[in-house]
Amino acid sequence: MDFFFESMSAEEHDRLRALHEPLTQSVRRLIEASIRTGVDDDTVVEARRAIDAVSAMLEERERDQTPRMRHADTGRPVVWANPVVGIRNAMAPPLMIEQDADGRCWSEFSLGAPYEGPPGWVHGGVCALVLDQILGEVASDGLTKPLFTGTITLKYLRGTPLGALRAEAWVDRVDGFKTYARGELRDAEGVTVEAEGVFIMPAWAREAG
Amino acid sequence: MDFFFESMSAEEHDRLRALHEPLTQSVRRLIEASIRTGVDDDTVVEARRAIDAVSAMLEERERDQTPRMRHADTGRPVVWANPVVGIRNAMAPPLMIEQDADGRCWSEFSLGAPYEGPPGWVHGGVCALVLDQILGEVASDGLTKPLFTGTITLKYLRGTPLGALRAEAWVDRVDGFKTYARGELRDAEGVTVEAEGVFIMPAWAREAG
Repeated sequence: MDFFFESMSAEEHDRLRALHEPLTQSVRRLIEASIRTGVDDDTVVEARRAIDAVSAMLEERERDQTPRMRHADTGRPVVWANPVVGIRNAMAPPLMIEQDADGRCWSEFSLGAPYEGPPGWVHGGVCALVLDQILGEVASDGLTKPLFTGTITLKYLRGTPLGALRAEAWVDRVDGFKTYARGELRDAEGVTVEAEGVFIMPAWAREAG
Repeated sequence: MDFFFESMSAEEHDRLRALHEPLTQSVRRLIEASIRTGVDDDTVVEARRAIDAVSAMLEERERDQTPRMRHADTGRPVVWANPVVGIRNAMAPPLMIEQDADGRCWSEFSLGAPYEGPPGWVHGGVCALVLDQILGEVASDGLTKPLFTGTITLKYLRGTPLGALRAEAWVDRVDGFKTYARGELRDAEGVTVEAEGVFIMPAWAREAG
């Protein structure tokens, strides 16, 4: 099934990644600095002006938005802007999701101040955001099939601490147009959140299949 | 029940808000600009250096992290860093959550490029993030009670388009230490996602209650 329209060579992908990953990383540092800062009022105003100048510089030319792209070698879509895995989206931690030969997906990552809910703990909705992404990836076989979330249920066993975490997901069963996926979020002590989701192939993809 | 330790005067709250809200807004603009930009390589490198200089400036002094604060007039906690409602967290849209006299919570807000999953649509996990926050707020009566998410289930009726949205939440019933909340996300055409959650008072708060 070919629902992405253009492919990007591995070389072009690597070139754009090497260029944009450090920029996004700098914006991530700025998000955290602006949460934590206690500098005086004049410095805050000066910082704001400097940030606006950078935004204006970057806004001078937009990238082509036209086609959805996939990586020529892997067949995976290029998801620069995705809020969980996008290397061009500073709100993404980002997760680098690996897929084992048996299809299971996993990712090791770290969450800091911007993802905090109760003091010291990851926001419950951020746990849901991360698990929705990894369950969706495993259900769609690394995003190579078009699937949308039907339902997702999160069960919070205990608080998830800020810091080093691991997410895992696997397909429980496939029933016609529905794929049932399960997953979990873990800290060093074990599972903190369990998730199960039903992912559905849209009607247009069934017809095209 | 008094689980926040210090109160912040309305004047101090307004002063800090007036100072930091524009800074965070500038960082939000930068997040979107760095996703969309198509400027040449030298300009990307120049932008990164300028951003790092601003981060270094803001990192020179950290704010006091010590006490949890609540607003002296409203009794609500001051949640500057929260990833959904925090006015100092650039990954927050942010939602301004209103509470009606009958206890129902609602918020009207807009989601742009950083929240995109499939092209043109809000990421399913972002819908979960937003709904977890507003269900938690209604269950805890505007965050004035200490409650943690036990389970949350999201049912996606159709795609949620980027742009203007409304979230609503209400308490379905209270059963001992468990509060059952429900809510929904809507676009101009109606409901896109339904949510139900069980929120639990932690043991330490039961003992203190």
